[in-house]
Amino acid sequence: MSHTDHRPADVMKKLVALCKRRGFVFQSSEIYGGLKSAYDYGPLGAELKRNVMNEWWKDMVHVRENVVGIDASIIMKPDVWRASGHAAGFADPLVDCHVSKERFRADKAPRPAVGDALPISCADKGQAKTYQEIIAKRFGVELERDGKVLTGLSVIADKQIGFTPKGADAPAQTFDFPGYVSPLIGCPFLSEERQFNLMFRTALGAVDPMQDVSEALADLTAADDLASAIRERFGKDAKAEGSVLAKALADGDRKKLLRAVIEHISGPAQVYLRPETAQAMFVQFKNVMDTSGLKPPFGIAQMGKSFRNEVTVEHFIFRSCEFEQMEMEFFCEPGTQAEWMAFWKKARMDWWQRYANYPEHFIFRKHEKDELAHYADDCYDVEYLYPWGFDELEGIASRTDHDLHEHETHSGQKLRYVDTEKEDPTSGKKPWSYRPFVIEPAAGATRAVLAYLLDAYHEEERTDAKGKPVTRTVLKLHPKLAPIKCAVLPLISNKEEFPAKAREVIEQLLAAGIPAKYDAKGAIGKRYAKHDEVGTPFCITIDGQTLEDGTVTLRDRDTTDQVRIEVAEAAAQLRERLGA
Amino acid sequence: MSHTDHRPADVMKKLVALCKRRGFVFQSSEIYGGLKSAYDYGPLGAELKRNVMNEWWKDMVHVRENVVGIDASIIMKPDVWRASGHAAGFADPLVDCHVSKERFRADKAPRPAVGDALPISCADKGQAKTYQEIIAKRFGVELERDGKVLTGLSVIADKQIGFTPKGADAPAQTFDFPGYVSPLIGCPFLSEERQFNLMFRTALGAVDPMQDVSEALADLTAADDLASAIRERFGKDAKAEGSVLAKALADGDRKKLLRAVIEHISGPAQVYLRPETAQAMFVQFKNVMDTSGLKPPFGIAQMGKSFRNEVTVEHFIFRSCEFEQMEMEFFCEPGTQAEWMAFWKKARMDWWQRYANYPEHFIFRKHEKDELAHYADDCYDVEYLYPWGFDELEGIASRTDHDLHEHETHSGQKLRYVDTEKEDPTSGKKPWSYRPFVIEPAAGATRAVLAYLLDAYHEEERTDAKGKPVTRTVLKLHPKLAPIKCAVLPLISNKEEFPAKAREVIEQLLAAGIPAKYDAKGAIGKRYAKHDEVGTPFCITIDGQTLEDGTVTLRDRDTTDQVRIEVAEAAAQLRERLGA
Repeated sequence: MSHTDHRPADVMKKLVALCKRRGFVFQSSEIYGGLKSAYDYGPLGAELKRNVMNEWWKDMVHVRENVVGIDASIIMKPDVWRASGHAAGFADPLVDCHVSKERFRADKAPRPAVGDALPISCADKGQAKTYQEIIAKRFGVELERDGKVLTGLSVIADKQIGFTPKGADAPAQTFDFPGYVSPLIGCPFLSEERQFNLMFRTALGAVDPMQDVSEALADLTAADDLASAIRERFGKDAKAEGSVLAKALADGDRKKLLRAVIEHISGPAQVYLRPETAQAMFVQFKNVMDTSGLKPPFGIAQMGKSFRNEVTVEHFIFRSCEFEQMEMEFFCEPGTQAEWMAFWKKARMDWWQRYANYPEHFIFRKHEKDELAHYADDCYDVEYLYPWGFDELEGIASRTDHDLHEHETHSGQKLRYVDTEKEDPTSGKKPWSYRPFVIEPAAGATRAVLAYLLDAYHEEERTDAKGKPVTRTVLKLHPKLAPIKCAVLPLISNKEEFPAKAREVIEQLLAAGIPAKYDAKGAIGKRYAKHDEVGTPFCITIDGQTLEDGTVTLRDRDTTDQVRIEVAEAAAQLRERLGA
Repeated sequence: MSHTDHRPADVMKKLVALCKRRGFVFQSSEIYGGLKSAYDYGPLGAELKRNVMNEWWKDMVHVRENVVGIDASIIMKPDVWRASGHAAGFADPLVDCHVSKERFRADKAPRPAVGDALPISCADKGQAKTYQEIIAKRFGVELERDGKVLTGLSVIADKQIGFTPKGADAPAQTFDFPGYVSPLIGCPFLSEERQFNLMFRTALGAVDPMQDVSEALADLTAADDLASAIRERFGKDAKAEGSVLAKALADGDRKKLLRAVIEHISGPAQVYLRPETAQAMFVQFKNVMDTSGLKPPFGIAQMGKSFRNEVTVEHFIFRSCEFEQMEMEFFCEPGTQAEWMAFWKKARMDWWQRYANYPEHFIFRKHEKDELAHYADDCYDVEYLYPWGFDELEGIASRTDHDLHEHETHSGQKLRYVDTEKEDPTSGKKPWSYRPFVIEPAAGATRAVLAYLLDAYHEEERTDAKGKPVTRTVLKLHPKLAPIKCAVLPLISNKEEFPAKAREVIEQLLAAGIPAKYDAKGAIGKRYAKHDEVGTPFCITIDGQTLEDGTVTLRDRDTTDQVRIEVAEAAAQLRERLGA
């Protein structure tokens, strides 16, 4: 039996449907056509995500002597992102395919070799016909069509394409291309490269900077000479070496001049939504160390939303523009990073596997040398076996003192620990003032929700009371993660005594710290099926006998077994079974 | 004794200092000079905020049969904010004072009457001199100076100011003003009104829209006639009635034309950060009702970050651009809203007072008729007695079916409950399909943190061991809110046995669900003082006797009394005292 047997082949489709049907995850702004880059967590999804994140916080912060949490703002000063490299590193060239409209990253596109034929492979015949017409009309190239493939193009030289009509020996037409083709259909008819930035940009300050921009542009573009007008209006700023205005003035291109004016005016108010929670731990490293009394080795943890303008959003909540993270920076003495890497690798894998039915679906992947960032010592990804294969869940990186070093340089503040008991290895004298090295276990909270849902999804073949085969869908979520710990079901809900008794039981459970939920809607079989589907570990049913002898049935989600117990012992039994 | 006696006059200054010193709240991006519109919660602040918000969630969601939670995205479709009125209503006219540089809302500025003298009241003599010079130089008006007041101006007609030199009978100069003056110094020399929007705007999609904008503007502004170039380039869009381009073309002003081009090109990718969490509950009303099986009366609750580009940020974390909310929409049958308003008023006030030392500092303020939004039935604010007086903490509004009605209209989706058991009051026939009426208790989570910190702040005059008077600062935080529930302190930390025993005690407490924290830093008296300041309800000290007979001292934060107890009974005692 394969270890992924518990999931049907179309598990993603089924899980997305279950999430919508049962109120785990909805599309954001659904009644307005939906936003595909963000999701809303419904009643059960909100509880599941809370449970995952609370377990992380408990394990990373509450039970550890040397880790504290913070909760920093999403909007931070742009200097932070200049120091971290996000302001530059997140800006990559992006290209549009003129034919299929696909948008892709130029640096990741296929690059055919000189001499290669260049078939354009469409999804089907109809699309091939449409694309054939677009290419003929817009680029004057009459390609042949062979089923769903358009032929006749080949790479004839570096960055040069030729079109050779059927039967001809030599190209009838030639044209330039950027050396790569669109990934989806392999088309060389592409837009220019354009810069894009994964960070969401917004403006701080109530006045819309575009009002100032349009006022300035109205004056500047009415002048006879745009460049002189810019020089006159912005004076010193236009001359400042390396400034956006000076660079554009040196280039002279009208488009770039206007872009520079927009940038110069709107720039000062510009801020970004954080693309990761991690930087706040570096920026507040000194404040936290000074106020908490901690000294290396110690960690700062944070959970929360981050935002990235992803080019491709995919796999449901796996990759979206708004997502949630659980990150920790562990600051240790230089030279001890390898031992702490080993420590955190174990701690984090233990955590992931603790809540899983199939711990073997969680694995490490060591980063290859050429994959490592230039400053990184070592890096492991925790990967999960998603339906599309192993993919990322958490990165555990040994980042040396790179981040503190960058923030020291950019802020001019010392970000060091002064160890008065130790000698500086260089000078041989006390104290040793050093920038701690960092191990960073950075996990995706929204990805954790997806992984545990996939791990929990089971379909079981059963026979019903009449002997007919039925499929039972059950989410075998760990009790700590399950959105509802225990459902209390009055067998009959229109008779006063049953609901009253059910509420009495709920009060007892709540008093014992077990958030039990009343559910009186539908036939009892349907209610069990529903609670199997949403992963409720236990159901307590109030029936006729309850009113007579004070006993209830306790049903186990995984086995579907029912036992009869005294109401009085329900809380204790549940606490034990839930591990509360 | 006044009921605010527990707080010194300069409590805000002292509390801000304590928050920074002890790691409750730091300025965002502090090492880069700080961002004044956002705050970072340090180790203790993060726990305090979590505790406040978890208590709300427990009380509003977990213990209630008819309330469920959601967790929606911060970025929503702009349609949501058009329907809610935020896209329009949040845009208000803003004005700059040319002299003091104050920025203020025109609609809230003082409006002097015709005939009034118009003294400009500066902060001090030095400022008066500076402003006198600015006004002379920039506006050619030579005002008299009398101490820190500049005189000679008066309102001589509607929107007209006169300057009458000392001793003269009639104004020597007259000029126009907008009818109001700057609030801070009463100055009539003001900028034009400018639109501003409290919502943070950002762009979805990786390509920077300003690149397209500058390309288009480079072409358009190079043309002989801007308006014709716009008409030609944008075709239909430029003609579409009511479109931003058509409106600007009708006006013809160059500035407005450029603004319209920017808006037209960047508009489609534009999204907003939510200015409140509430709208998601209306937008997902149908999904939640359909998937949860709930029917009116029922509620949907949400906690999370919201963002507003506030003109004035003030009072520490009271008003900042990034803040956190705890909101609930309670959907009920039309006609029952008054009884549910009474229900939620009581429930919410009970909640606020439950954690307070001075419950009388939490009061209701009923909104006056002219304060109510046009659609609102009734509204109460929960106010707290901050050092600057009573001010808002929560709003409990009876919003009728206004929100669902607006979202029905804008989305074209039916947002109704169909009650098959009841007759439609209009037709007298079953079923009754209605849009539920809404009671909305909307609380500020960050404000709750501030209110409870202020409520907890105490200074007590004591005498130390040598009989010298000392001030004890203590945060009398409710045990449920306190960031650290119990600190475990080895009396001597450099002897192996004390820390080992302390860690043993911590293990016992953690196993009993009490997150205890180890603290070995500094003299024992200093550690007690620190834990008083951060609101730790109990300290357990491991001393020489512990090693002999297994007893420890348990110190109470509020009384400072210490009792000796067996280690074995510590967990049970603490659970009881903490109400866990």
